[in-house]
Amino acid sequence: MYDTIRPVIWKDGALQLLDQRLLPQREEYMLYHQPEAVATAIREMVVRGAPAIGISAAYGVVLSAKRAVEQGRNHWRLQVEEDICHLAQARPTAVNLNWALAEMGRVMAEVEADSDPVSLLLQRAQQIHEDDIANNHLMGRMGAALIARGSGAVLTHCNAGALATGGYGTALGVIRSAYAEQRIERVFADETRPWLQGARLTAWELVHDRIPVTLIAEGAAARLMQQGEVSWVVVGSDRIAANGDVANKIGTCGVAILARHYGVKMMVVAPTSTVDMALTSGDEIPIEERSGEELLNSFGTRVAAKGCQAWNPVFDITPASLVDVIVTERGVVEAPNAEKMAAMMASN
Amino acid sequence: MYDTIRPVIWKDGALQLLDQRLLPQREEYMLYHQPEAVATAIREMVVRGAPAIGISAAYGVVLSAKRAVEQGRNHWRLQVEEDICHLAQARPTAVNLNWALAEMGRVMAEVEADSDPVSLLLQRAQQIHEDDIANNHLMGRMGAALIARGSGAVLTHCNAGALATGGYGTALGVIRSAYAEQRIERVFADETRPWLQGARLTAWELVHDRIPVTLIAEGAAARLMQQGEVSWVVVGSDRIAANGDVANKIGTCGVAILARHYGVKMMVVAPTSTVDMALTSGDEIPIEERSGEELLNSFGTRVAAKGCQAWNPVFDITPASLVDVIVTERGVVEAPNAEKMAAMMASN
Repeated sequence: MYDTIRPVIWKDGALQLLDQRLLPQREEYMLYHQPEAVATAIREMVVRGAPAIGISAAYGVVLSAKRAVEQGRNHWRLQVEEDICHLAQARPTAVNLNWALAEMGRVMAEVEADSDPVSLLLQRAQQIHEDDIANNHLMGRMGAALIARGSGAVLTHCNAGALATGGYGTALGVIRSAYAEQRIERVFADETRPWLQGARLTAWELVHDRIPVTLIAEGAAARLMQQGEVSWVVVGSDRIAANGDVANKIGTCGVAILARHYGVKMMVVAPTSTVDMALTSGDEIPIEERSGEELLNSFGTRVAAKGCQAWNPVFDITPASLVDVIVTERGVVEAPNAEKMAAMMASN
Repeated sequence: MYDTIRPVIWKDGALQLLDQRLLPQREEYMLYHQPEAVATAIREMVVRGAPAIGISAAYGVVLSAKRAVEQGRNHWRLQVEEDICHLAQARPTAVNLNWALAEMGRVMAEVEADSDPVSLLLQRAQQIHEDDIANNHLMGRMGAALIARGSGAVLTHCNAGALATGGYGTALGVIRSAYAEQRIERVFADETRPWLQGARLTAWELVHDRIPVTLIAEGAAARLMQQGEVSWVVVGSDRIAANGDVANKIGTCGVAILARHYGVKMMVVAPTSTVDMALTSGDEIPIEERSGEELLNSFGTRVAAKGCQAWNPVFDITPASLVDVIVTERGVVEAPNAEKMAAMMASN
């Protein structure tokens, strides 16, 4: 099994995050003892990917409780709640962040007066982390089963791999399983501007697992499909609304439109912690916009003329009507809509 | 008028090309005395853009004749014909290259035994150059007339501007005219990976002309259209087949599919020297593939893991059915097909 890539590690009472800004050139872990530093790491994309953000934030709450308890037991709840608010604001689109913090809040509420909150919180954070990896393996098998043998190649966008999760990956979990089962032979990866998650992270993960990977510019996706090279698009998600609308990396909606045009199937793979049943449609999902500098400058070089503006939305919304199937750990939802999503969420 | 950007200059018996690889940081002209060096400049993209390549090659033929004549009049034709073959192979997709070289060949055939081929060839090259600029102004007015007042913003892909032509531009000629006539307020420019023609060249041209320009990643185009921000996509072309299929920068077909999905109109602007009536459909247009290194490395930084492959087609084919209008200097072809294209080409 190739599940050794671990972006988030809890060790010796501290959090370690693989600095994804340095990949693939350098594999360096950053060490965190304070929740504020974890929030900054999420904001500055040391760690990214919806499930990985959620897991990191959960450990951030453990760090918060640890510090509060060390500073004296009085009012530890108040301080942890403040830190949870701070962590929740680190990035707006991925709902896994809020989900994981809510889970940690629930544990806090159950801590009895004289018991140790840190060990209980750590237990829950580690459970979230382990569940995520287990869910990815489960989704990997379910998603791969949808891909017929001899499907040739699939296309993925951004990075929904081990790096974006506790391990193994959502979209890349399906791809790993499908490759292991000899259903596919190759992966095409959109380079995914401006942050190049595809070039830097997805290609690195697939090379690591010896799965053949070919990088393309986003602009080449239509020609790839026109030539019949791919049978499926497989992506992750940062938030799924109750009607099945999918927020994911900017460019996903465009790929979904191309896929529909060329008769290529579109699969979204995400745990139920990514599903936000409080939002009736994707219109309500907050879309982060990052600095235009990510486009105006590249690798320290100013690429656009002074006076040029830039618009840099980080996510887009793919309407459920363009999604052929959503895979969660609770099952497969084909042609998703509000009714089917509610039934899936109510199951188990 | 803002038509002072000149990528190709003939001066003092030599060719000067604005080195487009250095823009927007540096505006440097390279000096050419030999046709082989012009072919290399085209191949290495010192000059790019279908009409600009054609014009440069025409001047390359002048340089060839000049050298041949200087070396003695015997067999000058043979040597020039050899140089023409060499120039023709510089890049495969833009038919303007072949068109301009055929024009120069026609002049050669008309040169009488005792007359000076150089001045006749130079005259024709300069005419090709001047006609191109004049055609761009004409197409600019015709294309702009199709854009209703209050249309807000348009999206362009790659660079079909002054830099890609003799001057003024094809797609950017329409955009310049439409902005001057207050039909549009802003231009969105795809950054256009991997060579970043949009970020480096289109943004520079529009800033130069004080036309508001906002850069986006290719992946953001669907969201831009989803939000109703643009009314038209306006692009150039490298070759148009007899049925109206359009070869243009990789990504154009994808943008056309998105435009159709969102009800945005698609305009292709190109002189008739870009139309190849010998090819019945876009399937026959040769598509250049450049080195995958353009994706695997960016700005001197290796971005993708070793072992990752890359596929780097430079152009794609947008089927005529996805094009709302083709604008040439001979007129406007709405909903292009073989019949309408033939009628347009036969006119004048």
